[in-house]
Amino acid sequence: MIVVLKQNVPGEKREQLISWIEGNGLRVHVSEGEFQTVLGLIGDTTRIDMDLIESMEIVERVNRITDPFKRCNRKFHPEDTIVTVGDIRIGHGNFCVMAGPCSVESESQITEVAHAVKAAGADLLRGGAFKPRTSPYDFQGLKADGLTLLKAARKATGLPIVSECMGITDLPLFEDVDVIQIGARNMQNFELLKAVGKMRKPILLKRGLANTLKEFLLSAEYIMSEGNEQVILCERGIRTFDDYTRNTLDLAAVSMLRELTHLPIIVDPSHATGIARLVPPMAMAAAAAGADGLIIEVHNDPLHALCDGAQSLKPEEFEALMGRLKKIREIIAA
Amino acid sequence: MIVVLKQNVPGEKREQLISWIEGNGLRVHVSEGEFQTVLGLIGDTTRIDMDLIESMEIVERVNRITDPFKRCNRKFHPEDTIVTVGDIRIGHGNFCVMAGPCSVESESQITEVAHAVKAAGADLLRGGAFKPRTSPYDFQGLKADGLTLLKAARKATGLPIVSECMGITDLPLFEDVDVIQIGARNMQNFELLKAVGKMRKPILLKRGLANTLKEFLLSAEYIMSEGNEQVILCERGIRTFDDYTRNTLDLAAVSMLRELTHLPIIVDPSHATGIARLVPPMAMAAAAAGADGLIIEVHNDPLHALCDGAQSLKPEEFEALMGRLKKIREIIAA
Amino acid sequence: MIVVLKQNVPGEKREQLISWIEGNGLRVHVSEGEFQTVLGLIGDTTRIDMDLIESMEIVERVNRITDPFKRCNRKFHPEDTIVTVGDIRIGHGNFCVMAGPCSVESESQITEVAHAVKAAGADLLRGGAFKPRTSPYDFQGLKADGLTLLKAARKATGLPIVSECMGITDLPLFEDVDVIQIGARNMQNFELLKAVGKMRKPILLKRGLANTLKEFLLSAEYIMSEGNEQVILCERGIRTFDDYTRNTLDLAAVSMLRELTHLPIIVDPSHATGIARLVPPMAMAAAAAGADGLIIEVHNDPLHALCDGAQSLKPEEFEALMGRLKKIREIIAA
Amino acid sequence: MIVVLKQNVPGEKREQLISWIEGNGLRVHVSEGEFQTVLGLIGDTTRIDMDLIESMEIVERVNRITDPFKRCNRKFHPEDTIVTVGDIRIGHGNFCVMAGPCSVESESQITEVAHAVKAAGADLLRGGAFKPRTSPYDFQGLKADGLTLLKAARKATGLPIVSECMGITDLPLFEDVDVIQIGARNMQNFELLKAVGKMRKPILLKRGLANTLKEFLLSAEYIMSEGNEQVILCERGIRTFDDYTRNTLDLAAVSMLRELTHLPIIVDPSHATGIARLVPPMAMAAAAAGADGLIIEVHNDPLHALCDGAQSLKPEEFEALMGRLKKIREIIAA
Repeated sequence: MIVVLKQNVPGEKREQLISWIEGNGLRVHVSEGEFQTVLGLIGDTTRIDMDLIESMEIVERVNRITDPFKRCNRKFHPEDTIVTVGDIRIGHGNFCVMAGPCSVESESQITEVAHAVKAAGADLLRGGAFKPRTSPYDFQGLKADGLTLLKAARKATGLPIVSECMGITDLPLFEDVDVIQIGARNMQNFELLKAVGKMRKPILLKRGLANTLKEFLLSAEYIMSEGNEQVILCERGIRTFDDYTRNTLDLAAVSMLRELTHLPIIVDPSHATGIARLVPPMAMAAAAAGADGLIIEVHNDPLHALCDGAQSLKPEEFEALMGRLKKIREIIAA
Repeated sequence: MIVVLKQNVPGEKREQLISWIEGNGLRVHVSEGEFQTVLGLIGDTTRIDMDLIESMEIVERVNRITDPFKRCNRKFHPEDTIVTVGDIRIGHGNFCVMAGPCSVESESQITEVAHAVKAAGADLLRGGAFKPRTSPYDFQGLKADGLTLLKAARKATGLPIVSECMGITDLPLFEDVDVIQIGARNMQNFELLKAVGKMRKPILLKRGLANTLKEFLLSAEYIMSEGNEQVILCERGIRTFDDYTRNTLDLAAVSMLRELTHLPIIVDPSHATGIARLVPPMAMAAAAAGADGLIIEVHNDPLHALCDGAQSLKPEEFEALMGRLKKIREIIAA
Repeated sequence: MIVVLKQNVPGEKREQLISWIEGNGLRVHVSEGEFQTVLGLIGDTTRIDMDLIESMEIVERVNRITDPFKRCNRKFHPEDTIVTVGDIRIGHGNFCVMAGPCSVESESQITEVAHAVKAAGADLLRGGAFKPRTSPYDFQGLKADGLTLLKAARKATGLPIVSECMGITDLPLFEDVDVIQIGARNMQNFELLKAVGKMRKPILLKRGLANTLKEFLLSAEYIMSEGNEQVILCERGIRTFDDYTRNTLDLAAVSMLRELTHLPIIVDPSHATGIARLVPPMAMAAAAAGADGLIIEVHNDPLHALCDGAQSLKPEEFEALMGRLKKIREIIAA
Repeated sequence: MIVVLKQNVPGEKREQLISWIEGNGLRVHVSEGEFQTVLGLIGDTTRIDMDLIESMEIVERVNRITDPFKRCNRKFHPEDTIVTVGDIRIGHGNFCVMAGPCSVESESQITEVAHAVKAAGADLLRGGAFKPRTSPYDFQGLKADGLTLLKAARKATGLPIVSECMGITDLPLFEDVDVIQIGARNMQNFELLKAVGKMRKPILLKRGLANTLKEFLLSAEYIMSEGNEQVILCERGIRTFDDYTRNTLDLAAVSMLRELTHLPIIVDPSHATGIARLVPPMAMAAAAAGADGLIIEVHNDPLHALCDGAQSLKPEEFEALMGRLKKIREIIAA
């Protein structure tokens, strides 16, 4: 940790600060510049409250040099983590596509979509049973019944399932779900992160709308510090001033996360854009950028025959996309 | 709801859409422009999925005209709501100051701060027992013990207490806390919002880092739709590109919320800026903008004698601020 | 244009507004909802100040339905525009790569880089002679001498050149530059846009750091409305809260712009990320998303031997990237 | 400047870097941590390209410790600058209000508004003659005629005038304008900044929509480095995800700038919010936050009788606001 002192700090105050830091078990290197003095703190700086030091009258700035995340940090664990779901492997060159409807609506709907996405080459079936809705008056999902229908579709197709859990109350219902999704709004619901950290199954953690990569990795760290190392990260768009798409897909985050962490990183082009016709180009771009997988909305509902499904692909569109993705993957893997 | 159709839509497809909308129990007004046709939907449009219509091939854009929030909407409840905590009244011209340390650390610390802020004119004592921390390795608060200490300080001073609850597991511990705070990271933790909506005590709801005013009001609506109408809104800064302060305090939101809702609106200048010396000017600005109150960090810890306390005021600074705030309030109330 | 009136507007005020609109040469369709009245304005609504109407006491909201951009609008010009530079064609499936150093430094440097990027398959040579620098104390480029060196490199290699012009004073120096670049900071320098609009050569217009797609297209419209239709749009990252990369590359903008305009759209992965090792994955992603080209920084300076060049690729890295891009293009073009 | 090296850097590469830095005329302090080595660079670090070092293979991070702005920096010039316009003084406790219409429309309009704002206590008359418009098809102002009308209003009332200049072509027309405004879109139009830096009259520099305080100060530095020290800074709202107001007024920037610079700082609540009824509370808040002045839109046009004027106050509203501002100022100045 680097502590930059203000100009013309009285020597006495400086010594007082150095003593206090040393009293916290750290060593201090003093480096005198032409205008300013810089202290280098050596030892276990996690014991020190960075904000506290930054607030001191004689301090101008503090910079932490070592990353606060440990278990997910590539520095301490250089090899890629591979998350396994049955026979499916995710990460370290294993590309995984999760597909299915935004909401589970009926047994025929989910089973039909499951068969369709499996035929097109999807590896997992996604489907929302518990739906996080901005308004309390909007449809909140079929809940437990939705999970039951998802499991029926799994039985019919053999596809493992992934579904979102919104709170610890519902967690017991997810015992038999293959991958538990933590949504963007819950990325810093630390109670929920700790609870799924105590489980021993893969967790799909979505990046929050306004969260930095560091915060994202520290949320993964919450799960991992409870003992569950099977975390899949998912970039799904961030909130910016831009108003044409629902969110702004931050694909450079995929490459940046690849450097910072050994965990697999997938992309959700459906929620990132909110517009079905932008999903194929963004899915292609994510694959070309080196993502470890995708989670894509696909519907097959006669009610939607009239429409595109706000951000969902039709099965035939999904199939066409899968064919092109395969070619992109061949180039990337080469 | 206004549905703008694309140019040159075939008449047949248009009729199909109109029939479908009418089949959902709504009436449709057709308005033909030079280039485009606009449908006006009349009736209970909450029954319709706006995203679904927007996604239809023949639709260019959809605009909802009626607000999705009801119980907190000033249109349907023009008089200001006054939230009461014992003898304290918040809202409709009743200005309320909540003050205290970021974290409860010890009985002497919290009791000393409580006496100090009471002497300076604070109405409630704030103090963190459960601390939401970005990193799992940072201090997470004294938890249940912290609440016990807060209650002791309440007994010693008579000040009602406000403290943050981070999850439903801990909620039983808050039965005897006067005001329950829902933090910014949990603004869309719908499980928690519903749970405090079932309680019958004031809830202090903080705006999320990247949430619009509409989303903020809909989170209040989650609480109110469960029967708890005692909601205090708190603006505490939003996340922007700006990097000098921790967040960007959005004071215009106070005036805008005043128009949209009848709920009281307070401001947290401590978390918004993260810098103690910016707290007094921002507190003054918030009062001048017409806020119904403030929540301010104040510390009194010998360990902090060396420093300013990242974003906390010293008791004497708080007292000086209270004197100036009183004068601002006199101008605003005139 | 749709004008939504507030609730319970007196009939008299409403009639006054309708008369005023009709007095401006428009027709008005009135649509009465259960709670609110909506006016549909028909005719040439560009004559009306939308902000003025929105500000009227009786008005709640105004929505413009027709796009304010005309000449660059795909609705009025469905076929892709192809910009030509000598034999080079950009747009409508013609992929173009512009490459070269951030700054022109010396004849040997720019000529060596020019030969290297040409050998790797670049179509144009880019190089900065006038450099927009945040600080007046930073190196501002070789200016006129830089352009002379660029032209020498063009002569040596046959590659057409693209370089940034920062103000109308310097414009005469660009008469013999093949493509004139307008930088992100000048996207709304309307004096400069109008001046290059009077020229008859291709303009490379970069998106501003915080500009919407609509504003971007209206800046293109400023150029086109002066008679110059040869505009190439360039997405180069937007400013967000995110702090790992210099800007956030908004690749969905490429697909969205494709729908809105017939102009060619290229991507600048070097400035978007500011980190050389993120340039290849983002270049691949841009190609996979369907961009019409790329502008990439490549250096070849012995002084940089020690380093990566903040955001510049080495010639051998650029060559490897070009090989992979070619394969991506084959998939996209199929 | 602090250079943090990556872990396990070979000693040879480290020495190479140190030699290179020393070759640039700087001294290097080496500080060895448990995991990482930190270099402290001492001397005139402006000679070094920070991005270049950051890009070096063996470097993890670079932090500049000394501010890049000099002339506007309070560290080197602790006393407040007072900008004078005739008898008017701005800064160091001298509060200044500039008021007038968004656009100059006619002699009667501007003269009537000028008399009205003078009677209410305004110090300067503002009025737009050259209007920066997003669309080339929108009204661009009366231009030279507008300036003539402004000067007539100055003659009639004695109020000095402030008006925006959009480009160097028009600058000769501003010789006799008392304060020249550089708008937000031109904050980084360096050609224009340098040109007004050569003048010897006060410049009102508005913060760009997405610019940090450091960039803002460096743009002031562009003007000052040409010899013109009479710069007034103006916070006018930044672009964020928030969609209720046109921009987000960043009032904490006023307090932060106060620390960083000795230049006067004013606030534009009209453009920041875009909504007339939010102007008075935000003007009050700005005064309470310690701003040195305000620039406020006021209109007096019979055509606007029907409306509020998107973001303009009526003269009677402005007068009422001035009365309340005076009281706020008395508290702040006490």
